[in-house]
Amino acid sequence: MMELLNLIAPLPRTIANSATDKALDIVKRFLPNSIIHGFRTGSKVWTWTIPKRWELNKASIKAGGKTIVHSDWSILHVLNYSVPVQGNFTREEILKHIHTIPSQEHAFPFVFSFYKEQWGFSIPHSWLDRFSADTYDVQIDSKFEDGLLNCLTCFIPGESNQTFVISSNICHPLQVNDSLTGVAVAADIANRLSRREKLKYSYLIMVVPETIGTIAYLANNSNLIEKCIGGFFSEMLGTNTPLVGQKTRKGITYWDSILVNLSKYGASKFKIVDFLKSAANDEKVLDSPGVNIPTISLTRYPYSEYHTNRDNMGIIKEEKLREARNILQQIIDYAEEDYVPIIRNPGPIFLSGYDLYPDWREDPSLKPLWDSFLDVMYSIDGVHSVIELANKKNISIEHFFYWTNKFHEKGLIQKKSFIINKQNEKNQF
Amino acid sequence: MMELLNLIAPLPRTIANSATDKALDIVKRFLPNSIIHGFRTGSKVWTWTIPKRWELNKASIKAGGKTIVHSDWSILHVLNYSVPVQGNFTREEILKHIHTIPSQEHAFPFVFSFYKEQWGFSIPHSWLDRFSADTYDVQIDSKFEDGLLNCLTCFIPGESNQTFVISSNICHPLQVNDSLTGVAVAADIANRLSRREKLKYSYLIMVVPETIGTIAYLANNSNLIEKCIGGFFSEMLGTNTPLVGQKTRKGITYWDSILVNLSKYGASKFKIVDFLKSAANDEKVLDSPGVNIPTISLTRYPYSEYHTNRDNMGIIKEEKLREARNILQQIIDYAEEDYVPIIRNPGPIFLSGYDLYPDWREDPSLKPLWDSFLDVMYSIDGVHSVIELANKKNISIEHFFYWTNKFHEKGLIQKKSFIINKQNEKNQF
Amino acid sequence: MMELLNLIAPLPRTIANSATDKALDIVKRFLPNSIIHGFRTGSKVWTWTIPKRWELNKASIKAGGKTIVHSDWSILHVLNYSVPVQGNFTREEILKHIHTIPSQEHAFPFVFSFYKEQWGFSIPHSWLDRFSADTYDVQIDSKFEDGLLNCLTCFIPGESNQTFVISSNICHPLQVNDSLTGVAVAADIANRLSRREKLKYSYLIMVVPETIGTIAYLANNSNLIEKCIGGFFSEMLGTNTPLVGQKTRKGITYWDSILVNLSKYGASKFKIVDFLKSAANDEKVLDSPGVNIPTISLTRYPYSEYHTNRDNMGIIKEEKLREARNILQQIIDYAEEDYVPIIRNPGPIFLSGYDLYPDWREDPSLKPLWDSFLDVMYSIDGVHSVIELANKKNISIEHFFYWTNKFHEKGLIQKKSFIINKQNEKNQF
Repeated sequence: MMELLNLIAPLPRTIANSATDKALDIVKRFLPNSIIHGFRTGSKVWTWTIPKRWELNKASIKAGGKTIVHSDWSILHVLNYSVPVQGNFTREEILKHIHTIPSQEHAFPFVFSFYKEQWGFSIPHSWLDRFSADTYDVQIDSKFEDGLLNCLTCFIPGESNQTFVISSNICHPLQVNDSLTGVAVAADIANRLSRREKLKYSYLIMVVPETIGTIAYLANNSNLIEKCIGGFFSEMLGTNTPLVGQKTRKGITYWDSILVNLSKYGASKFKIVDFLKSAANDEKVLDSPGVNIPTISLTRYPYSEYHTNRDNMGIIKEEKLREARNILQQIIDYAEEDYVPIIRNPGPIFLSGYDLYPDWREDPSLKPLWDSFLDVMYSIDGVHSVIELANKKNISIEHFFYWTNKFHEKGLIQKKSFIINKQNEKNQF
Repeated sequence: MMELLNLIAPLPRTIANSATDKALDIVKRFLPNSIIHGFRTGSKVWTWTIPKRWELNKASIKAGGKTIVHSDWSILHVLNYSVPVQGNFTREEILKHIHTIPSQEHAFPFVFSFYKEQWGFSIPHSWLDRFSADTYDVQIDSKFEDGLLNCLTCFIPGESNQTFVISSNICHPLQVNDSLTGVAVAADIANRLSRREKLKYSYLIMVVPETIGTIAYLANNSNLIEKCIGGFFSEMLGTNTPLVGQKTRKGITYWDSILVNLSKYGASKFKIVDFLKSAANDEKVLDSPGVNIPTISLTRYPYSEYHTNRDNMGIIKEEKLREARNILQQIIDYAEEDYVPIIRNPGPIFLSGYDLYPDWREDPSLKPLWDSFLDVMYSIDGVHSVIELANKKNISIEHFFYWTNKFHEKGLIQKKSFIINKQNEKNQF
Repeated sequence: MMELLNLIAPLPRTIANSATDKALDIVKRFLPNSIIHGFRTGSKVWTWTIPKRWELNKASIKAGGKTIVHSDWSILHVLNYSVPVQGNFTREEILKHIHTIPSQEHAFPFVFSFYKEQWGFSIPHSWLDRFSADTYDVQIDSKFEDGLLNCLTCFIPGESNQTFVISSNICHPLQVNDSLTGVAVAADIANRLSRREKLKYSYLIMVVPETIGTIAYLANNSNLIEKCIGGFFSEMLGTNTPLVGQKTRKGITYWDSILVNLSKYGASKFKIVDFLKSAANDEKVLDSPGVNIPTISLTRYPYSEYHTNRDNMGIIKEEKLREARNILQQIIDYAEEDYVPIIRNPGPIFLSGYDLYPDWREDPSLKPLWDSFLDVMYSIDGVHSVIELANKKNISIEHFFYWTNKFHEKGLIQKKSFIINKQNEKNQF
């Protein structure tokens, strides 16, 4: 995952430009079976319009002939999607276009205006000292071009065409945690799933410019939506800050069950928040009225370097990325393994008779497992899946599988196959 | 509304007598299209029997030839529906028939006994001093007569015959807040609705003697019940005391949604209590088993002048009446406007693209509206109405209509017509 | 009930032996219409195997020729179902097989190992002083025999074959509260029900060895399971300790309603706990996946004499047994009486008109009844039974029946017959 980050991090990506195209090409090298889709700028996608491509040649502010800000120093010094500007401005005028972070003297913010015509610069708050002259020579040599907005998808077919979406964003210039880390985790999972011999579900990995990329792709592939039974939005996963799991819009779906169960019983505990209370990004599209793909998210938001020049490789910890990746892997593994346990005989199972009694008096580490036996035994109903039952009864999914798999080994239960279908949430369309 | 109160307040009304007849005639002048219905005394209505009419000629207590209580001073001095009495009583005997309010030295209570034969007097507690003699000459010259118990109704037809009932009482002698104010509000709303060009629902305004009037009318018009999809009991609305909203019996109906939403987000905030925890009056009939008209209520109960001679014009504030009237109006307006919003495109609506973004950074008063956008956007499901969704998601109905009406203006949603039908609560009959 | 206890208490019963056979014969004397069923040892019942019968001739420990423990002193000195032993053991070896209760110096525990081959002795903790020698001569002269495991059932037919099970255990040697008291209560109720002229439900009383008895009987009479609509596990009811009611597995069944209502409003208040949080015994079979008989329990567990030689007649109070019996009787009586009240007229019932007004001002003891009138009146829905409504609205079942029975006497309601059917919980089989 670190290799992908290192290669893409320096590129001045945005919603649509040549750097983003290059970034997607790099992702494609990691995901050989992926496809890059281009959507024409200016075209209408649902209620949205695809914006033009934006290329910046250079931008600068000069005062008394001296350059005090220049885009060559960092592309982040220029408000992303700035309109072209050439002219002189008074001190008062120019300051209206300058963005700083007063609380962080030496950092400068990533600022942008994709849908409203603006221009501006971003500088460390301490640089305001440089603005002592009366007039300033401002140049922004930017271009808006017709062309394509590009998105990458990688489809990994399983036995069922019921599809789980893993969504990530590539569009923030120079930003690494937000959200190249999400791309890295998604790509790593994609490779792992591709190597599996057998998958129950199909998987669709999306690497797109935020919001508009997801809208453009889905609006042009609307037949896919029906098949998407769940989603995971993967973003901001590489910092030291704590993990946060965010629920789907409905908040009570199958995917919420797994996320919440892992947050309590998994190897890494984490906090759970309601829909749109953490990331609030592409899941706003995936899990919106009319799309209705129940989408959970995992992030390490908030972190202090968010949307600044400081969101760079220096803040990324590989073990943090791995921890997040493992959670996503676990979610998928549970869903892949899930089945409906059907007991073959009525009554409580005779543990001693089948050598299944965990002798926790001799090995105290078996105590939690033993405690979960009654919970599991008296939850099984022949109708619901392991994950559904674990959720209903608030039992560790891990323990539940332990017991029902043991029962299965001994021939005490049948495993009935279980697959999530698009829940009857077709309220819209 | 004050004119109606001024005209009717002085009349010594009761369940059925000539003063009540006169009062209903006055109401009819304010509601030209209303009808007065007479129901024969002694007739059986459901499990009840219509009581006889009661007329009081005069009543007095004399001690040593001196009149110490007289009905001419106030009809309230006589227990309403007292049987005729003529005779001498010892001090001990007479005191059993005297009612006072020990906590209110100079006020005297409105007392009555409609269904159990009794007689009595009501006096200020301080008047007990007048009872120092050994014997008293008591005369109650009252008459029970066969005839009619009269009720007034005013039907305002809408496009649908699904009918909303507004119920009020006229029967308490000299009492104004309880409940002539309810009549005034009901009559004012009736006039306003009559002037509307278009109504979705029909409306039935009822001005009746408490409980028995509602029973008599409905028992004789039982075909109506099926069409009544909701009700509002209007009583005790003119004092300075705080408004209280009372839920329906089910407590979770459409009308509860609106009442509760207004109590939190409306111009006048107010407290909400469960069914029969405030007024407990004609809604006990309207929203009873077998009738099942889900009925909300609004009152300013409790107030200290309740059921005393002090419940008169002096405690009525016109602006308080208006505030209550406005709430009833708002309930009706919301129900009349309600529709199911159907979005035309999947995904979140592109606010900037339709000039719908409320720039709360420039105008901070727009902040709550902006905050509600996400709530509204992600609630719409193409099935439920604005009021249902606002209730489910605890969003201001006002804000919800703001957004969906804006979306409609821009052609982004369709409005599907919505009308409440008698919910399937036909448990009885 | 005390007679039965006195007769059976001294018998050294266990899962299957001649003393248990004798005990069942005694129960049969109290329940003439009962049947004793034998199930062959070694046979497979669901996932379980019926263990062999166990007879103990005698067992002893000698040190230096002196007997320091002997089964003649109490059968409880020998671990129940001990394998035969004959030999000499070092102090270290023998102590591994000695069980005491360190916190109760002079009591000794009832220990057993039905499904794992073991041997052992149980002694007062203070007797450890006797183990000062280096070697011990141990003899356990026990036999495992093929034969029958016996169970007793008594079926009391009602109008419907929908059956309520009352389950109790007979198998703990010398133990009285656990669980001969449960047998005594079950048998007493059985006799009372047999004398009834009319029963709505059928009743099945079971007196069996714990767990395996219930499994053996049901596995061999599986056609019965379908008809069993509820159950009561009766155990440990004779001590001074507080009553505890335990819910069914589902926790929200009809039987839970009655139990919870009685725990709050009955003559004896008691605590309620969730399934398997108190007794955790034969209801683990009755109310297991695949059997699904919703089974409530009543016990006086915990009590300090539990599973020791001190659980004997000395701790049993007849009035405590009676109190528990009365609760079971009340549960049955409510279920037998239950009906759906259907009102004949809409609207609130005119209490004064039918002389039903409880004049609580004259008789303050009537106040709670009066308070419940509105609750009852406005709950009736023509669909649910008295018990269901009382549960839904949290009203005393006693009060509910008071009012609806009064209404029925006055011809104001119809009673529609009501019977619980096996709820659609057929998730397994």
